[in-house]
Amino acid sequence: MRDVAVVGTGMTKFGELWGQSIRDIFVEAAQQAIADSGVDYIDSLYVGSMSPGLFVNQEHLGAVMADYLGVNPIPATRVESACASGGVAFRQAFLEVASGASDIVLAGGVEKMTDGADVTDVLAAAADQEYEVYHGITFPGLYAMIAKAHMHQYGTTREQLAAVAVKNHRNGVKNPNAQFRSEVSLAQVMSSTMVADPLRLLDCSPVSDGAAAVIVASLDVARKLNKNFVKVVASAQASDTIALHGRESITTFKAVVEASKKAYKIANLRPADINLVEVHDCFTIAEIVVSEDLGFFEKGKGGEAAKQGLTAIEGGRIPINTSGGLKAKGHPVGATGIAQIIELYEQLTSQAGPRQVKNVRRGMAQNMGGSGASCVIHILEAQ
Amino acid sequence: MRDVAVVGTGMTKFGELWGQSIRDIFVEAAQQAIADSGVDYIDSLYVGSMSPGLFVNQEHLGAVMADYLGVNPIPATRVESACASGGVAFRQAFLEVASGASDIVLAGGVEKMTDGADVTDVLAAAADQEYEVYHGITFPGLYAMIAKAHMHQYGTTREQLAAVAVKNHRNGVKNPNAQFRSEVSLAQVMSSTMVADPLRLLDCSPVSDGAAAVIVASLDVARKLNKNFVKVVASAQASDTIALHGRESITTFKAVVEASKKAYKIANLRPADINLVEVHDCFTIAEIVVSEDLGFFEKGKGGEAAKQGLTAIEGGRIPINTSGGLKAKGHPVGATGIAQIIELYEQLTSQAGPRQVKNVRRGMAQNMGGSGASCVIHILEAQ
Repeated sequence: MRDVAVVGTGMTKFGELWGQSIRDIFVEAAQQAIADSGVDYIDSLYVGSMSPGLFVNQEHLGAVMADYLGVNPIPATRVESACASGGVAFRQAFLEVASGASDIVLAGGVEKMTDGADVTDVLAAAADQEYEVYHGITFPGLYAMIAKAHMHQYGTTREQLAAVAVKNHRNGVKNPNAQFRSEVSLAQVMSSTMVADPLRLLDCSPVSDGAAAVIVASLDVARKLNKNFVKVVASAQASDTIALHGRESITTFKAVVEASKKAYKIANLRPADINLVEVHDCFTIAEIVVSEDLGFFEKGKGGEAAKQGLTAIEGGRIPINTSGGLKAKGHPVGATGIAQIIELYEQLTSQAGPRQVKNVRRGMAQNMGGSGASCVIHILEAQ
Repeated sequence: MRDVAVVGTGMTKFGELWGQSIRDIFVEAAQQAIADSGVDYIDSLYVGSMSPGLFVNQEHLGAVMADYLGVNPIPATRVESACASGGVAFRQAFLEVASGASDIVLAGGVEKMTDGADVTDVLAAAADQEYEVYHGITFPGLYAMIAKAHMHQYGTTREQLAAVAVKNHRNGVKNPNAQFRSEVSLAQVMSSTMVADPLRLLDCSPVSDGAAAVIVASLDVARKLNKNFVKVVASAQASDTIALHGRESITTFKAVVEASKKAYKIANLRPADINLVEVHDCFTIAEIVVSEDLGFFEKGKGGEAAKQGLTAIEGGRIPINTSGGLKAKGHPVGATGIAQIIELYEQLTSQAGPRQVKNVRRGMAQNMGGSGASCVIHILEAQ
């Protein structure tokens, strides 16, 4: 396999983008990424998107986007793995370049969630339709069960959950593309509207429109572009049971554990070698569980770590979600995995402005589908 | 890139499978493929499916299928390119093995279309939602415009269209997995219910449930399995404008022309080197146009060729759709591209029974999305 790099990025602001269609926002992000990288062609493109069919009645998104980006007749493929669709798009681009089949591939992600569909209903299609959704469960409900179990088993507190939201909102203020650029206090999170006990409104990532794109190229091409690039030192993916009831434990995400083990092995690294990480904080409890499953904190200590500031940009041991995370940056489902890569790219090339973490060499992106039935992890390294 | 082979296959019967769910039929096909190949593990899996969200409210199909197939925690990804989703799944499996990232990958496709959704409405999501579907066009309407233009430009006749259906039904009789195993006459096709002038009911592929799966492996693994295998000598994909109105001509599919040119170049072959081909005959006119665009007949002569029997199993110059094609075998959208590969595998390993074409060494599969906005082509070779 050939070495692969990320050579350019582009993204829309995340939020309620009512003036633009799904194709508009994807093309905006893709054009930015192409311009930023300085490439004068792309060999193919991947679009990660969870449910454009249910959201805006448009499938066949690869072809739509290749057309409106003006890059016909190149191959264009949509990939889907629920909320991990963006991460999976990046992985397919990585594999295509690593194989030698292509030199320069665009990996993008997009979701248009605010155009009128019943969002909770559409998102439920990422859970087990026959054994979970049919009986009325929603995603906040699934993660609430995980939170309850984690609190019961490890003593995680309501305040520790809130600390995740407070920290991610603080980071989001510094991200010009974030949906929410306002701080929230512990008290505000803990008194916000109850959604699914113990999760409150400010524990939940929002409903968002948005698109993100990166240019993936062989290391040879990257070197010739004469600009900043980062190397992809690991790509790993894993799966778990689609429904929570099929798991031995719901206080750990097995797919996250398996994918991270594989990623560390491929890159020959340990958790201590990673300087910052973007994790899939669709709910505050998810960030806590994942921070443990990736090996950054002992099992059951993720909540405490968040509360103690160990995951903050300033003074943190391992800054988590410097971008603001899904919580504050927004979570246009298919775009999220690509936006994580973009945050790592900006940090590792020292372009993160007020969010910049000092002395960073390696970053990890952890993108997850459903209640953790799929997980894709990438490790990027500054050059 | 490493050499890649197909080492085993499995598929359900295509048709109205009301007693089984989408996961049931996928698992049935995948288990068959695993057993047939003799492999004792798979490294990852791809599922091609166009719209499980709109059809049965289930996205995240990679994770669902990995779970129910019992292969967690391997990576599992859904890919989508409308009716070319199966072909694209096969291509992603090919790239993953070719890259060296995996040795053995399952590529499957599935669609459950008869569970109650408005099928015409769901399929329309493969067209341009904003500029075509919004104004009321359906897929039979799009292909009817292509047919009218082809008749006008090249003198293609109503009888020539019917000849495609007659031939494909004749082949379907010999395929135990085909949805329709009954012959139809020219007169029956030409007097069947009008759907979209000039296309009648028997010009249209049916609404189907079905799943298909193949095992893709490195040539090294294939040789050790000590059974029949076929080599993948070309994988190529291309895109075109999503909407018909964006094209210079609607009597040719540019994505088919581009993908086939690339495939011939990769394999260093010409049309005359191909012994049989499975094409995407979603409507009879599609088979005629594609048979020309692939270079088997002069532009405008595809209808005449079908009528003259040049595409028949017996006495044909280039047998097309020996499986019965989408018309008679059925068209569970996401499964179609994989079922095409299965037909080639059976023919090239001399296991096609009464459908067997004599002395075949190379076969081509041409899978297409929407009204031709995406096309993926594979060439397989007997070993």
